[in-house]
Amino acid sequence: MCRWLAYSGAPILLSEALYAPAHSLIDQSLHSRLGAETTNGDGFGVGWYGEPDTPGVFHSTAPAWNDENLHELADHVSSGHFFAHIRAAIGSAVQQTNCHPFRHGRWLFMHNGYINEFNTLKRDLVLAVDPQLYPEIKGQADTEVLFYLALSLGLEDDPLGAIARAIALIEDAAARLGVPDPFQGTVATTDGETMWAVRYASAGSARSLYYTTDVPTLRELYPRRQLFAEVSDNARLIVSEPLGDFAGVWNEVPEGTSAIVAPDAAILRPFRPRAPVTTVPIT
Amino acid sequence: MCRWLAYSGAPILLSEALYAPAHSLIDQSLHSRLGAETTNGDGFGVGWYGEPDTPGVFHSTAPAWNDENLHELADHVSSGHFFAHIRAAIGSAVQQTNCHPFRHGRWLFMHNGYINEFNTLKRDLVLAVDPQLYPEIKGQADTEVLFYLALSLGLEDDPLGAIARAIALIEDAAARLGVPDPFQGTVATTDGETMWAVRYASAGSARSLYYTTDVPTLRELYPRRQLFAEVSDNARLIVSEPLGDFAGVWNEVPEGTSAIVAPDAAILRPFRPRAPVTTVPIT
Amino acid sequence: MCRWLAYSGAPILLSEALYAPAHSLIDQSLHSRLGAETTNGDGFGVGWYGEPDTPGVFHSTAPAWNDENLHELADHVSSGHFFAHIRAAIGSAVQQTNCHPFRHGRWLFMHNGYINEFNTLKRDLVLAVDPQLYPEIKGQADTEVLFYLALSLGLEDDPLGAIARAIALIEDAAARLGVPDPFQGTVATTDGETMWAVRYASAGSARSLYYTTDVPTLRELYPRRQLFAEVSDNARLIVSEPLGDFAGVWNEVPEGTSAIVAPDAAILRPFRPRAPVTTVPIT
Amino acid sequence: MCRWLAYSGAPILLSEALYAPAHSLIDQSLHSRLGAETTNGDGFGVGWYGEPDTPGVFHSTAPAWNDENLHELADHVSSGHFFAHIRAAIGSAVQQTNCHPFRHGRWLFMHNGYINEFNTLKRDLVLAVDPQLYPEIKGQADTEVLFYLALSLGLEDDPLGAIARAIALIEDAAARLGVPDPFQGTVATTDGETMWAVRYASAGSARSLYYTTDVPTLRELYPRRQLFAEVSDNARLIVSEPLGDFAGVWNEVPEGTSAIVAPDAAILRPFRPRAPVTTVPIT
Repeated sequence: MCRWLAYSGAPILLSEALYAPAHSLIDQSLHSRLGAETTNGDGFGVGWYGEPDTPGVFHSTAPAWNDENLHELADHVSSGHFFAHIRAAIGSAVQQTNCHPFRHGRWLFMHNGYINEFNTLKRDLVLAVDPQLYPEIKGQADTEVLFYLALSLGLEDDPLGAIARAIALIEDAAARLGVPDPFQGTVATTDGETMWAVRYASAGSARSLYYTTDVPTLRELYPRRQLFAEVSDNARLIVSEPLGDFAGVWNEVPEGTSAIVAPDAAILRPFRPRAPVTTVPIT
Repeated sequence: MCRWLAYSGAPILLSEALYAPAHSLIDQSLHSRLGAETTNGDGFGVGWYGEPDTPGVFHSTAPAWNDENLHELADHVSSGHFFAHIRAAIGSAVQQTNCHPFRHGRWLFMHNGYINEFNTLKRDLVLAVDPQLYPEIKGQADTEVLFYLALSLGLEDDPLGAIARAIALIEDAAARLGVPDPFQGTVATTDGETMWAVRYASAGSARSLYYTTDVPTLRELYPRRQLFAEVSDNARLIVSEPLGDFAGVWNEVPEGTSAIVAPDAAILRPFRPRAPVTTVPIT
Repeated sequence: MCRWLAYSGAPILLSEALYAPAHSLIDQSLHSRLGAETTNGDGFGVGWYGEPDTPGVFHSTAPAWNDENLHELADHVSSGHFFAHIRAAIGSAVQQTNCHPFRHGRWLFMHNGYINEFNTLKRDLVLAVDPQLYPEIKGQADTEVLFYLALSLGLEDDPLGAIARAIALIEDAAARLGVPDPFQGTVATTDGETMWAVRYASAGSARSLYYTTDVPTLRELYPRRQLFAEVSDNARLIVSEPLGDFAGVWNEVPEGTSAIVAPDAAILRPFRPRAPVTTVPIT
Repeated sequence: MCRWLAYSGAPILLSEALYAPAHSLIDQSLHSRLGAETTNGDGFGVGWYGEPDTPGVFHSTAPAWNDENLHELADHVSSGHFFAHIRAAIGSAVQQTNCHPFRHGRWLFMHNGYINEFNTLKRDLVLAVDPQLYPEIKGQADTEVLFYLALSLGLEDDPLGAIARAIALIEDAAARLGVPDPFQGTVATTDGETMWAVRYASAGSARSLYYTTDVPTLRELYPRRQLFAEVSDNARLIVSEPLGDFAGVWNEVPEGTSAIVAPDAAILRPFRPRAPVTTVPIT
């Protein structure tokens, strides 16, 4: 049920993060170890920041492991801030408009997990989306609705607060409609400068989430490893599952926790859904 | 803005209707004469009835003229009742879930035309869809919403009445939201036995629509033409534009008219939108 | 490295063989047990015989497990003779022209395995293809070249002999060019009436191959099982790996063996490559 | 039968050349004015030079006008040297491996036109390709064979000479095999610094070809036009047909002519096929 990767730091070729690691995201598309499914072959997406104001996105319905265009793009595009996502579809169609990351203006959003019994909840959730934003919804994925709910609830001003309110709204609708365990997963969003990630499940344990140790510490741990010498001091990866087995590199984000990775800081905080502070206009 | 074809009669290979005619639907995908666009290359769809209870559908995002699988299917599948549609997208994504014909149970539905300023109207129209049916909407095409509105308004019991009510509902929402010329086009639906088609525009002239002369008359007109000798007495085509130039074969459906083609009869009737008789439950 | 299925018997819906079984070919596209790879997600193909003279083929680059058109086709097309193949690409592009089964006139051909170091051998092998047939080669898969070699060496008159000669030719070229273990796999071909299959490896053990017990015996073994009551007496499946775990249903084809399944007989025979009896004209 | 564009100059976003002009290449994919076909919807390709050693290529089977990923790429990737090509297939499959530009090391190659009766000539031409290069041929397009012939005949050392020798070889094979009018079209190749283009037909008039006036002259002609103020002095486009109607901007390359566009010079020279100077080793 999907795997993802988020990078922030000095610009690198996308392929250094997507293809080079031993257990890269591309490898995970065929052989995920920690995911709900070992195969994540129902399309993929990449979103990257560069010169123009909004990020570029590349979405494909092909499996990441056999898409030549992804390989070309990753080998020839550099970015200091990018998201990548591989999909294992559970119900919604394999089409580009259902591929993560989703984009709105400068924002990207992606998710590993699900809204439970989405077909039961969908109409109520879509009704809670700001009618001005509603026409922008292009696909049928639960994550896209979650993104537009969070945008309707203030994502651009308060990303973690808006995600908390959106999940609270989902849990509220689920309680009303008798849907158990409404939300599961990890979420990431970014404005191109800061990355926010959340690990949370309404019930039971949430999908796995990891972040990398700061680069100066990694350099001390592995003084001879060229990669750590090359990347910038503030480079960070947040990932669904580790890209390799090096001790000291990967740190688990605890359940019910949010992570903020900015150019000059990385912070973990407890996360729990919150009822929307202001009433959402539902017409 | 799309072209379509509907066939009813004794079973024939799909290719006899789709590829064989001089100005076939496949030819129209590159060189439409009467359509709003000469190129209809944004995907296509075929729906056909055979042994099992529900019709099969084949949707592709490739242009009809270069899709090898369509050619194979058409050359190897026979049916006595089928729909085919080629798409010229105007706004919604080129993806299989936006390809006509749409299907619900035994019913197929397709459309050439548009709901004007669909993004402005979409939320109101979607709200008017029966909440039980709402989760079935898989794409973002205006036609799919029109289909689910008509289903919500009784399509399965009274196809033409339900289409009239659905268009009335669209025109009503458009009047409320200040959208001019809300509906344009030709629509076809079938339950696998009878075909119903409508030609209507809220303003100005509607997209073209033609039906074939009855086969016994065609045989008298063209006694040496093998095709007319072979097809069944009750075979009929309804099409967006004629598939060739034979005099006496193609008859225009007048504007504001519906056509009913059943195994034993073909009837034209005036058509105009009607306000829904019963109140639609909007929650 | 691919899995395949071949059916011969009274007509059934393709989905009864492709989707219904517990460990169906569709399931094997995600979770192959006996294949070289657990995932066979690099496209698929189906070839089926019906009314017209030549078989229809449907090829797709999507994984079989998420292709809606395959599901539709399988649910609405019946055939008494069909091939299906799921692909795990090892080198050649994921494109329809590399998908099995390959077709020439009334013949279909498919393969699970490989020609070792194909890039080293390809030019010599292609040169051995009948120049009249050469322009028909549409893709770059090793199997397509094997098929055209076999056609050049008399497949249409003596299928097993031609396959034996083609593999001998490959082994000869490999010996000349220093390529070890040149051929590996299982091969199936048919003219729409009889199916011929081969299990052979130049070195080591060959890919797995199974065929079903005759239906009358299965009915005695499983008197209450509806499926065995419904299928025809002479129905047979030949498969890369069993579609389920029923005792007594699946029989392994030994290594170095060919199987012939005709409407009235099923025969196993030893198989080994044979040098071409007549000189192949190489210009 | 295809249209193409080649740009060299200071880096610009690909979209400035591909989408912005009034009669852009994207517009030509639907409405070519000078091409053999008005619709060029059988896939497309882009090749661009940036940081790494070899150019990136992006190939798609979708029509250029509806491919979202092309739009994204063009809006977010800048390059000072790129090729773009839209395809109207005439015989070979619509697949990525048949999309131009083709790549070998640092070289790109594309073509508008055809090798006449390619199926008749193909085997002889493929035999003339350097056996070391032969396994690199990935598709079935005539242009790819032309490229590998030119590479075999010294393209990397003498591009125009190698193209002349390759066309001579094609014309020679055609004469031997009775194929009339063997070569038609325009060809472009580049090593990432210089662009070489050829306009030539064995018989009759060749496909159209244009290049832009030097930028300093354009600035004098159109002192208020922002675009000409922004692009670098040495920026040049070579195109199948003009991207707009501005007087003084587009200059026709005469028939039987080659164009060389280097950072500091642009030269036209007569072009005619030449028999290969050295014998090609045909085994």
